[in-house]
Amino acid sequence: MDYSKYIKNVPDFPVEGIQFKDITPLIGNGKAFKACIDEFSDFAREKKATKIVGPDARGFIVGAPVAYALELPFIPIRKPGKLPRDTFDYDYDLEYGSNSLSMHKDAIEQGDRVIITDDLLATGGTLEATIKLVEEAGGQVVGLTFIIELLELKGRERVGKYPIKVLLKY
Amino acid sequence: MDYSKYIKNVPDFPVEGIQFKDITPLIGNGKAFKACIDEFSDFAREKKATKIVGPDARGFIVGAPVAYALELPFIPIRKPGKLPRDTFDYDYDLEYGSNSLSMHKDAIEQGDRVIITDDLLATGGTLEATIKLVEEAGGQVVGLTFIIELLELKGRERVGKYPIKVLLKY
Repeated sequence: MDYSKYIKNVPDFPVEGIQFKDITPLIGNGKAFKACIDEFSDFAREKKATKIVGPDARGFIVGAPVAYALELPFIPIRKPGKLPRDTFDYDYDLEYGSNSLSMHKDAIEQGDRVIITDDLLATGGTLEATIKLVEEAGGQVVGLTFIIELLELKGRERVGKYPIKVLLKY
Repeated sequence: MDYSKYIKNVPDFPVEGIQFKDITPLIGNGKAFKACIDEFSDFAREKKATKIVGPDARGFIVGAPVAYALELPFIPIRKPGKLPRDTFDYDYDLEYGSNSLSMHKDAIEQGDRVIITDDLLATGGTLEATIKLVEEAGGQVVGLTFIIELLELKGRERVGKYPIKVLLKY
């Protein structure tokens, strides 16, 4: 499927100079959204994933349906103060600004084969933080999936060695 | 399925006196998560839904898989400043604090039959805001689904007339 017609480019959002890729038309089209999740699910199945991880908030939109499709656990990565029990935490830099992410300590176990899902691979800051949290808990990251990769920002180089499934590159 | 064993009660989170219902063990169990989404999907199918709406952020975890299961559009309701194009906005009071929510103006059209999904029905503030946004855009709310309803907080009375599907009541 040609997903590109479901992505809207929004100039200067959220700040001047950023060409924001709006995925809401894609998730707002039943057939396109299903095709996207099916591609990610096939990839996760091939990698023999045991858990699907997605960062707050758009990572929930792609990760939770993949978990549902494969009847696997979905593990949310959240901003600090949102998860109610003991967490691992990680601070990192964003494309614009900085952030911190948390994961419940009991969410991932030694031996878990983890797919990390998100809508966008930009600088890779969020992704790197998520990988660190999963690996700190003893999980093995067996693959990464994104709707969009922004090639100029070189997120792929930042994290390197993991198998990646991407639907659209800009 | 007895979902209650997958809900952890966390006292005094996020503030003293609140008994927080943690759904992460439920979404962290593949079979329980699938059963939950299948129940919501059956309900949405019965109501002849054309779009699934979920508020940021845990509403994405339940809403996006229901949209995927039914091959329907998923419409995210977000905090201000997150959606890049023209939005309808609504301010409201929370169980603790206040909030504002936004929806893309072109997300819902006249005649759309909308199911609103979220993890928790508490005071109904978030729900009421979401209903207002959908109806302002010309959509018809044909049903509401929640994993948990907190009966003491009377959210159901606040919104009243809509068909509701709830898995657990406390």
